[in-house]
Amino acid sequence: MIFKDRLAQVAKMVEASFSEVFNEIMCQTPPRLLAAMQHSVFGAGKRFRPFLLMKSAEIFGSSSLMSLRVAVALECVHCYSLTHDDLPSMDNDVLRRGKPTVHIVFGEALAMMAGDSLLMLAFEILADERSHPDPAIRSRLILALARASGACSMTGGQALDIESLTDIPDEADIMRLQAMKTGALLRYAVIAGGIIGKADESALFLLGAYGDAVGMAFQIADDLLDANEQGIETGGSSNRDVLLKKVTLVQKLGVDEARHRLTFLVDEAIAHLADFGPEAEPLREAARFVITRET
Amino acid sequence: MIFKDRLAQVAKMVEASFSEVFNEIMCQTPPRLLAAMQHSVFGAGKRFRPFLLMKSAEIFGSSSLMSLRVAVALECVHCYSLTHDDLPSMDNDVLRRGKPTVHIVFGEALAMMAGDSLLMLAFEILADERSHPDPAIRSRLILALARASGACSMTGGQALDIESLTDIPDEADIMRLQAMKTGALLRYAVIAGGIIGKADESALFLLGAYGDAVGMAFQIADDLLDANEQGIETGGSSNRDVLLKKVTLVQKLGVDEARHRLTFLVDEAIAHLADFGPEAEPLREAARFVITRET
Repeated sequence: MIFKDRLAQVAKMVEASFSEVFNEIMCQTPPRLLAAMQHSVFGAGKRFRPFLLMKSAEIFGSSSLMSLRVAVALECVHCYSLTHDDLPSMDNDVLRRGKPTVHIVFGEALAMMAGDSLLMLAFEILADERSHPDPAIRSRLILALARASGACSMTGGQALDIESLTDIPDEADIMRLQAMKTGALLRYAVIAGGIIGKADESALFLLGAYGDAVGMAFQIADDLLDANEQGIETGGSSNRDVLLKKVTLVQKLGVDEARHRLTFLVDEAIAHLADFGPEAEPLREAARFVITRET
Repeated sequence: MIFKDRLAQVAKMVEASFSEVFNEIMCQTPPRLLAAMQHSVFGAGKRFRPFLLMKSAEIFGSSSLMSLRVAVALECVHCYSLTHDDLPSMDNDVLRRGKPTVHIVFGEALAMMAGDSLLMLAFEILADERSHPDPAIRSRLILALARASGACSMTGGQALDIESLTDIPDEADIMRLQAMKTGALLRYAVIAGGIIGKADESALFLLGAYGDAVGMAFQIADDLLDANEQGIETGGSSNRDVLLKKVTLVQKLGVDEARHRLTFLVDEAIAHLADFGPEAEPLREAARFVITRET
């Protein structure tokens, strides 16, 4: 099976699981709030984070079915962050993956509440014994997710993002910001897979190093895509990252050097998996896939 | 010791614990985000929810020190909800307890991120083994908090609140909305105390019934205060609840009938504690305190 088909297979599982989760909360959730949450979650998302989580768990013998609910919780946090990021006071984006953003369809207040609700839903799913029978594992998954998403990581990165619009950041600032804003949740994906599979500390360390490299590569690939789109004048969404000339690594290093960096990071990510056997092949493919996003 | 002193004692413990928590995350959190979180949390809050939680846990022999971190997590969620509620797209409040609201001081984007970060911090605290040594208890506390705060409860209530501005709700609608928006978190406070103290199912049921009655009483007392302030023209914060003539139980029933209802609910709350001994006295006092708020 080629990588894109594997990814699509996971995406299908994730969407089916999301439907089940929404069915459970449907009767007690105000209909428009539920619709806003569904708008945030369903769409053309690649489900790359759930893929990393489920394939990481498989390395340690935990099946996709065992890790699926944890992957859905992670995707809830990812979708919450996009929905809040798109709001007028943040990036003010009107389109995401070709669809109007949540606040365009449902208004700002409901978009914020939908994001908040998805965040709560993530922790509700993780704390439920159906996600993992061992409460010690559930607690660890929750602690790691809260840390990867909170003030020291993702929301901290989003806050720095706002600050960086007045100061010009240097390369180290950009890398720190991106590690917090994008990297931490990608790192969590592979770490969580390891936690589910009861990986030992050294395996978790390697997974974390892989996750960090993939996270950084992912962001550079994203910036290269943006730079490319900017060149061909898509005239789509009003992307503040571009409009306000927010400095990315691509702008800092130039397109060629950024491409070298991307290749280097992907090789590094794969090298961190050297101790794992063929069962880690999906994660190696995922790292390579990050490069192909550029084209 | 009179009730207000007991309440002040808990508030002091909660604020000291908050300072410790912020010290731990300080070096990795962007300074302005940290300041916005602190602005949201510190102030003239009565810490009524932490009080209920800690005194509920004491009924079952769990000391204040054992329940303090859980109480702080709960207060994080409460403060997050106020910070998001105050935003221009929601209630558009510029003052809270005499202080400018978070978005007035730090801007909308940072206020939203501060709320998000407090929410994550709540789950980070709860999942930490320092909050309770038993991971099964931690998972239960997290599951119950996520449910009390999510789309089926608090954020659901906030979403309904927005809807109710176009339709005129009847008495049952108002009670349902308030149970979701305010009641669920007050109910959680006493239930969480019971979970920490390993209360049996029948004790949890009674605590829940007490929490429901106190929650409803609390909201009526709040609405009576608002009605009173409106009468004397404070000219303070632009309270949308009043400006947009949002229908409260006080408006629906009239002040006198609402006062009767309040007294009835407080008696009911206390009656639910009949099976508990003198160790439940602080919760009985808390219920009586809700009435005195009116004056």
